[in-house]
Amino acid sequence: MATSPLSLNDCRARDAADPLRSLRDLFTIPKELIYLDGNSLGVMPKAATARAAEVVAQEWGQGLIRSWNTAGWVNLPHKLGNQVARLIGAGDGEVVVTDTTSINLYKALSAALSITKEDAPQRRVVVSERNNFPTDLYIAQSLCNQHGYTLKLVEPEEVSASINADLAVLMLTHVNYRTGAMHDMAAVTAAVHKAGGLMVWDLAHSAGAVPVGLRDADADFAVGCSYKYLNGGPGAPAFVWVHPRHTDRCWQPLSGWFGHSAPFAFTPDYQPAGGITRYLCGTQPVVSLSLLECGLDCFAAAEKLGGMGALRTKSLALTDLYIQLVEERCQGFGLGLATPRNHAQRGSQVCLTREHDAGGDLGSGAFAIVQALIARGVIGDFRAGDGGIHKDILRFGFTPLYVGYEDVWNAVEHLRQVLETEEWKKPEFNQKHAVT
Amino acid sequence: MATSPLSLNDCRARDAADPLRSLRDLFTIPKELIYLDGNSLGVMPKAATARAAEVVAQEWGQGLIRSWNTAGWVNLPHKLGNQVARLIGAGDGEVVVTDTTSINLYKALSAALSITKEDAPQRRVVVSERNNFPTDLYIAQSLCNQHGYTLKLVEPEEVSASINADLAVLMLTHVNYRTGAMHDMAAVTAAVHKAGGLMVWDLAHSAGAVPVGLRDADADFAVGCSYKYLNGGPGAPAFVWVHPRHTDRCWQPLSGWFGHSAPFAFTPDYQPAGGITRYLCGTQPVVSLSLLECGLDCFAAAEKLGGMGALRTKSLALTDLYIQLVEERCQGFGLGLATPRNHAQRGSQVCLTREHDAGGDLGSGAFAIVQALIARGVIGDFRAGDGGIHKDILRFGFTPLYVGYEDVWNAVEHLRQVLETEEWKKPEFNQKHAVT
Repeated sequence: MATSPLSLNDCRARDAADPLRSLRDLFTIPKELIYLDGNSLGVMPKAATARAAEVVAQEWGQGLIRSWNTAGWVNLPHKLGNQVARLIGAGDGEVVVTDTTSINLYKALSAALSITKEDAPQRRVVVSERNNFPTDLYIAQSLCNQHGYTLKLVEPEEVSASINADLAVLMLTHVNYRTGAMHDMAAVTAAVHKAGGLMVWDLAHSAGAVPVGLRDADADFAVGCSYKYLNGGPGAPAFVWVHPRHTDRCWQPLSGWFGHSAPFAFTPDYQPAGGITRYLCGTQPVVSLSLLECGLDCFAAAEKLGGMGALRTKSLALTDLYIQLVEERCQGFGLGLATPRNHAQRGSQVCLTREHDAGGDLGSGAFAIVQALIARGVIGDFRAGDGGIHKDILRFGFTPLYVGYEDVWNAVEHLRQVLETEEWKKPEFNQKHAVT
Repeated sequence: MATSPLSLNDCRARDAADPLRSLRDLFTIPKELIYLDGNSLGVMPKAATARAAEVVAQEWGQGLIRSWNTAGWVNLPHKLGNQVARLIGAGDGEVVVTDTTSINLYKALSAALSITKEDAPQRRVVVSERNNFPTDLYIAQSLCNQHGYTLKLVEPEEVSASINADLAVLMLTHVNYRTGAMHDMAAVTAAVHKAGGLMVWDLAHSAGAVPVGLRDADADFAVGCSYKYLNGGPGAPAFVWVHPRHTDRCWQPLSGWFGHSAPFAFTPDYQPAGGITRYLCGTQPVVSLSLLECGLDCFAAAEKLGGMGALRTKSLALTDLYIQLVEERCQGFGLGLATPRNHAQRGSQVCLTREHDAGGDLGSGAFAIVQALIARGVIGDFRAGDGGIHKDILRFGFTPLYVGYEDVWNAVEHLRQVLETEEWKKPEFNQKHAVT
């Protein structure tokens, strides 16, 4: 980064030259907001308001029960699943959109353990990262307790060494929620298979953010979230993919009627459907599910402009720019970089650290700095450290569909001002909320 | 039923005198439709269109991630749970609205088995009805397979005899989906407790349809559906109640982050929250969840007019009237009554049977009769029999919030015409769809 300092005009010029710039117009970005939290909740596609009115007033209000057929409600998990499949390198008919990430992980990890128990009963260890997203660890903890497995949590650099003859399943989130660090999906999966284990990927911070090739990597199971980079709306249903070599080998435990081979025959015995359909369970929240289509349609528009490859190029340019500007303009305030500089190891977010006592009596100050930025309209978020090797994190997501280069400049400028003026030390920025 | 034949004018007079008649104006009833399928999908409260626009365009579109706090998204499962609690005789803070009925049943039945395993490990049988709603049986089948229990399915009249020293859990749907027959919740629960077992109730066809007293009956666990009589919208999230004496005794297996005692501390170990909160799992579909409030608000309006007691009185009057009119006006067409005449044993629906060969080559004809009615704008549904003691069913739900007495007259008149003209024998009414 020995280039000459960048200016606001340089950033504007980059926006003007951005081949994906028109995609921003597909979304509602609240005025005066620089939204760098699309990795937590993506912004609203403009089409969502009309779609919501249609599904509520027409499909529900007028169509009523008939809409299960006439409006295609019954096929939504598969229809949307096929749209998601194209973004994660999965095949047609291999993905369903349903339930939550936690619940889909329960299904996938249960199935993985069931298969491994049959094929390699001596393998009794499930490995994950200590700072994997907690709900993944909680679900794994429940399943390990139920089925007598040991859940071993390691640091990212210890993952390789944990792939051994004891490993039943390695369960990783592809892009880490705290650091933005990305695993090499193909290499890790290959190592796990070579050692005789199974691989479960959580794509919560990957789907729609970085190119993903589940089939190319020959992965076993994957789950992911649709309300982050896929812009499906708050709490939009999640997705699950299972390699076809595994789908029909076992039941997943949440054997609800939508996973039955003939759900509307109403027979008392469960007979699972073939393929990914058996990963469905109960009736889905149709309104929330329908809105996801608006988010996925934006990727269909992006496809014409280069698709995930072009989005990835822009994402890296945005995160590179943010890192460069923070280093040029926010020196001397105790900030560090948690996100890898190496492109191959970086997702679509940049996470800054602050030493635990950098803020004196106010701890690292990271929480308050994020609050002060939010008050200025720069929306990122804070993730607490553990007081040990995992530091407090200031987290900023860069969604290439709608974030621009001028946004990056302005975000850094606000950060500089918050730090220089010590605005973040105000009491109102040091009071914690229920959710951040 | 020795009264003189009723007339259309009699029915109109009843509507005019109905103290609950104003509640109908809270809903959008499509013109020319007689909707007797509120036991499958309730109609849309008029408030839902504005609420959908608000939650999508404002809370998501403008508030974005901040709405978890500012719009109260994080509290919706509890807030709505408290509204549901009042309709089912549960206490404040004892119910959460979340996930699907199937998934909530998995949580509840898992917990019940976990408790019974500790308190009475010799009890190894789970009992339910053979014609309970299939997804309940599928979930029970999965859990029994996992934990080594025997799932015993019986006919309703055999339930009493199956409450014995082997019983771990009795799992019943309070109002049967095929027949509308209602169990005596207090008596059955007391018998189960006397025998040393635990009782799990599914309230899918009870909540908002009939008065329910979970606490009065001293039940153990209950789940239910919000898109039928609660008018929450297609696939609206379901609810779960656990008696406070049980909530903190064990984990439920779907131990996602929203069930953690401190979900936003992001710690790697699962520590379940106290009380019903631990029955939450992942992030909920906020838009679908929010719309349920419109449905529940209609019950708040009904509360001022007598609440569930007044709704029950009207519901029985509607179903009595339907039975009387069918018997007076549709004689000689092979119809029978599957729903109990005894008020204490009847939910809010009437199910007619037709002998398996009553339609000759067209089977019972029940499917086609329902299709012919739907084509005339009378929406009910069909549930197939098994060719044995469970006959084909024509099912009609009477939601006292919005169904009127004139609707009942007209519904029977259409049925009479469909039967008399043999309109139902047309080929187009004998082709089955994916969902009915």
